Formats: sequence, C-alpha cells, structure tokens
Amino acid sequence: MMTDFASILTMLDLAAAVVFATTGALVASRKEMDILGFMWLGVITGIGGGTLRDLLLGVPVFWVVNPTPVALCLLVAGVAHFTAHRVSSRYRLLLYLDAFGMALVTIAGAAKGLDAGAGPLVALVMGVITASFGGILRDILGQEPSIVMRKDIYVSASAAGAAVFLLGLWADLPREWAMLAGLVTAAIIRCAAIWFNWSLPAYRPRPGREPDEKGGIK
Amino acid sequence: MMTDFASILTMLDLAAAVVFATTGALVASRKEMDILGFMWLGVITGIGGGTLRDLLLGVPVFWVVNPTPVALCLLVAGVAHFTAHRVSSRYRLLLYLDAFGMALVTIAGAAKGLDAGAGPLVALVMGVITASFGGILRDILGQEPSIVMRKDIYVSASAAGAAVFLLGLWADLPREWAMLAGLVTAAIIRCAAIWFNWSLPAYRPRPGREPDEKGGIK
Amino acid sequence: MMTDFASILTMLDLAAAVVFATTGALVASRKEMDILGFMWLGVITGIGGGTLRDLLLGVPVFWVVNPTPVALCLLVAGVAHFTAHRVSSRYRLLLYLDAFGMALVTIAGAAKGLDAGAGPLVALVMGVITASFGGILRDILGQEPSIVMRKDIYVSASAAGAAVFLLGLWADLPREWAMLAGLVTAAIIRCAAIWFNWSLPAYRPRPGREPDEKGGIK
Repeated sequence: MMTDFASILTMLDLAAAVVFATTGALVASRKEMDILGFMWLGVITGIGGGTLRDLLLGVPVFWVVNPTPVALCLLVAGVAHFTAHRVSSRYRLLLYLDAFGMALVTIAGAAKGLDAGAGPLVALVMGVITASFGGILRDILGQEPSIVMRKDIYVSASAAGAAVFLLGLWADLPREWAMLAGLVTAAIIRCAAIWFNWSLPAYRPRPGREPDEKGGIK
Repeated sequence: MMTDFASILTMLDLAAAVVFATTGALVASRKEMDILGFMWLGVITGIGGGTLRDLLLGVPVFWVVNPTPVALCLLVAGVAHFTAHRVSSRYRLLLYLDAFGMALVTIAGAAKGLDAGAGPLVALVMGVITASFGGILRDILGQEPSIVMRKDIYVSASAAGAAVFLLGLWADLPREWAMLAGLVTAAIIRCAAIWFNWSLPAYRPRPGREPDEKGGIK
Repeated sequence: MMTDFASILTMLDLAAAVVFATTGALVASRKEMDILGFMWLGVITGIGGGTLRDLLLGVPVFWVVNPTPVALCLLVAGVAHFTAHRVSSRYRLLLYLDAFGMALVTIAGAAKGLDAGAGPLVALVMGVITASFGGILRDILGQEPSIVMRKDIYVSASAAGAAVFLLGLWADLPREWAMLAGLVTAAIIRCAAIWFNWSLPAYRPRPGREPDEKGGIK
C-alpha cells in the first residue's frame, strides 16, 4: 500500500517534470539559446521545485535516488530544441498542461512533506514550493520577469489546492480522495484564471506618499 | 541551560524574521505586486538566510521543525500588503530595525554554526550568510540591484560582529557576554553607517587599462 | 589508497576554487564593487558548484568540514580588489586557467558523485553542476548574462569530459587513467573552443511562426 502510494507520487513527479521541462525549453527558445541552454533550463525547471522540497525536508533528493526525471527532462529539452516552433504554436495548450502539472506536484509535494513528518503549514509550503520554485529558477536564469512579479493566479491556485488536500485529510477523508479534491481544486482555479484572465489586485502606492526613492532597502 | 540558550536563539531568529519580512514586503510594494508576491518575498527574505545556514550545516531546517517563523512572515507580509504606504513612510525607522535584525541573526547564525561543530571561520561565514542571504534572494527576485553590488556597510558590519563574538569566546568570556559584545558591535557599525552614510571604497579601473570588454568571463 | 584519492579530490577542489574565485573577483571589478563585494562574488563563484553538489548528494558540505577553500577564496578576492587591473590585462590567460579549473572540478565532482553511491547519469550531472553552478551564481549576482544564455562551449566540454571519465571506468580503466582521460578531454575541448571561437548553433525561431509574445509562460 505504502509502496503503491510512493510509486504514484513518483509518477506524478515524472509527469509534471516533463511539462515543466517543456516550459523551460520554451523560454530557452525565446532567448535563442543553444541545445545545452535548452537542457539546463529544461532540467532546472523540471526538477528544481522537487529538489528544493527534498533538501528542505532533509530527505534524499528524488532524482539522485532515481535519475529518470533528469533523463526525461534532458530528452524533452533536446527534442524541443528542434521542434520549439511547433510547441510554441500550441502555447495555450501548454498553459493548460502546465496548470495540470502544477496541480500534480502541489499535492505530491504536500504529501511528501507530511510523509517526512512535517505539520500542515510546512506541508502546504512544500506543495507551493514544489509547484513554483522550478519556474522561479527558470525565470531568473532566462532573465524573464519572475513568477513572483506577475499578477496572475498561480501560487494562489497551488496554495488553495494544497489547503483543500490538507483539510480533506483533517476531515478524515481517505487519502486518495483528499488528494483528488486538492488536485481538482488547484487545476480548476488555475485553468479558470487562464481562461478568464483572472488576476489578484496589485499593491498601488498612494499618490503623494511615494516611498523614499533614494535609499535602497538593505 | 542548553534549552534556555536554544530558546533564545529561536526567539532571535523569530524577531529578525519579522523585520526582514517587512523589508521584503516593502520591495514587493515598490514593484506593485499582488498579495502572493508580498508573501513570497516576505517569507523568502525572512527565512532565506537561516534556511541556507541550516542546509549548509546539515542540521534540520529551523522552520521545518517549527513553522512559527513562516506563519509570522506570511502574516507580516499580508498585513503589509494593505499598509505598505505607512511602512514606507517610516522607512528610516525600518532601516534601523533592519540593522538590529541583522545583528541578531549574525550572532545567532554564528552560534548555531559553533553548536553544529564548525570551526570559527565557518561560524563567521554562517553568521554573515544568515544575515545577508535573505536580502540577496529578495533583491534577485524583486529585480533590484543586489546587496553585493551596493557600497554601504552591511556585510562588513555583520562580519565584524561575528568576529567580535568569536574573539570573545576565544578570550573565555561567558557566552552571553560574547554574544552581547558581537551584537552591539554589528548593530553600532551598521547604524553608524546609515547615519553617516559610510561606505567602503569601490574598485575603480585604471584609465587606459580597461578590461577586455568583448569577451564575457566564463 | 582511498585516503590518497580523497586528498587528490580535495586538492583539485582547492586549485579550481582559486581560479573560479578569480573570475568572480573580475566580475566584481567590472561592476566596481567594494572589497566585500569582491569577497562575496569570489567565495560564491569559488565554492558554489561544489556546495550544491554536496547538498544534492546529501554528504557534508566540503568547506564546512574543512574551511581552507573559503579562506583561500577570501584571500584571492581580497588581493584581487587591489590588483584587478593586472589580472584583467591577463584576461586570456585567465580564460585558459578557468578551462583547466572547469576540467578539474568536473572530474572531481563526477568522482564524488560515484563515491556517494550515485549512478552514471547522476555522476555526470554532478560533474557539470560542480563546474557550472558557481559561474551561474556569479553571473546572477553580478547581473551579467548568465552562462546558460551564452553560446560558447562550456557546459558541453564539461559534460564530454565527465562522459569520457565514466566510459573509462565502465571499460575497466584504472581510476587514475579514466580521470586523466576525462580531464584532458574537457580541457582540450574548452581550450579549442576559446581558441577557435567555437559555438553551438542557437535556436532560431521560424519567420512567420513567432511565439505568442503577449502571454508569459507560467
């Protein structure tokens, strides 16, 4: 049973890594990188979030134990180097696939946090980190505006999904049902945000009360 | 006794996390992010330095063991989303609070390094990392000039405080006194640097001996 | 024998750290940083790759165990603050030294991966990470175009060297010979790439099939 569950987590990690690696390769194509640049960005986007999660939890890093995700990300990025124009013409499709990948790794990340003995808040943070950190690294390395600078609903969808999963467990739902509920929540919120162009209100400075521009914040 | 000491370290980490999270939220306000952006930057700035310290030392990450700092940073960042104009109008006050936070985590970081069995140089580096790394992440993610690019006395104040703490221990001062001496040193140097606009001399290339501009450094 | 081998790895790490720290200090000089900026960039470039490698492998971080590399990087960066104009006038020499350093840490990193029980793919990735990650951090912190954005042969030379080393082991060469073969491969490819200005072909978007510019990729 435990083994089954662990292997489901592994498969979710794998499926999401492929989708994330594709988004990394697309950034590489926009920056007109060479094939090694595609591979770097593909691998980092694909496994960056899960890597940070495992380091923080103090458990063995998943792809050091079993490097299948790395091999898959390298393959995806290599193929994308020659076919990125086809991928980018299916850009909307990719956005929805990415929403699905985000939902998968959010729940898998939160579950792995619980398995490692963390409490609910840390498990939620692990879910969000797994879903977001690869994309943050991709944007820093590809010199794109970071995920944290954008206004669309991504981190919030991930956090909502993880919260539903944890609430489900707390309400004594079977683990599979709680996972499914969380997964569907995250995916639906994210897909709706893409479809309807939802965004959260941004902070607006009040006129005449501008922050002191001269000093940087240390 | 040990427990007392450990709980002091925990409280210092907590107080500093709140101050740091506030500076992260202020960067988020200048970039006009949404509330999730505030939370990301707040949490990363608040706990980034201590997280790296714990990973490097190979000890359990402090907020995975006890997530109070994460909860506090989220709360501070959430509140700041609605009140940042008030915070930024007290910008100078925040700079001094940040100096105090920096001094706290420098000494707490160095002490944690020693507790984990590290020698004095590594302990000093741990103090500086705990004080600086959250701010470095904040500046990278907020796309501000990084802390390492600026000329004001921040890292040096942190290093001086850690050095005084370690010298105090080496001179057989009671641990509490050595900590206090280091803390006061770091805070005073940093506050004086803010007050008097101190800075270290920057490297200036000699005219006529410009580095080769064409090649990047690999 | 094992001890001998471990001490060779340590010495390779040390020699490469010095070369890498120098490239970090040169970036600091171009950005006209103060001496602490030189030290941050020097230390991060010098030990960043090996640090990530050790974290991922779950082994104690090499410079926490023995801080000699940190001390050396600080020294090199401090000296460079006063002599960078001399170093940068020998810029081509530094590029070749860096090629040698890259070759050294690639093989040392891959060997350390194998020692920690990783399979060949993970060992190869560890070699590449050790060689590249310090430079990636340097470029992010120094706000230079990242190593992954450039088209010259660096990561590929590192990957080729690690592959030759692993193939040599697989073909039952003595470990020292396999290391030497890998080292020479990486260094020669990199030096030839510098000398002949080799680069890999970059991805070029097809005209009339531009990716959708409006949406960012999440």
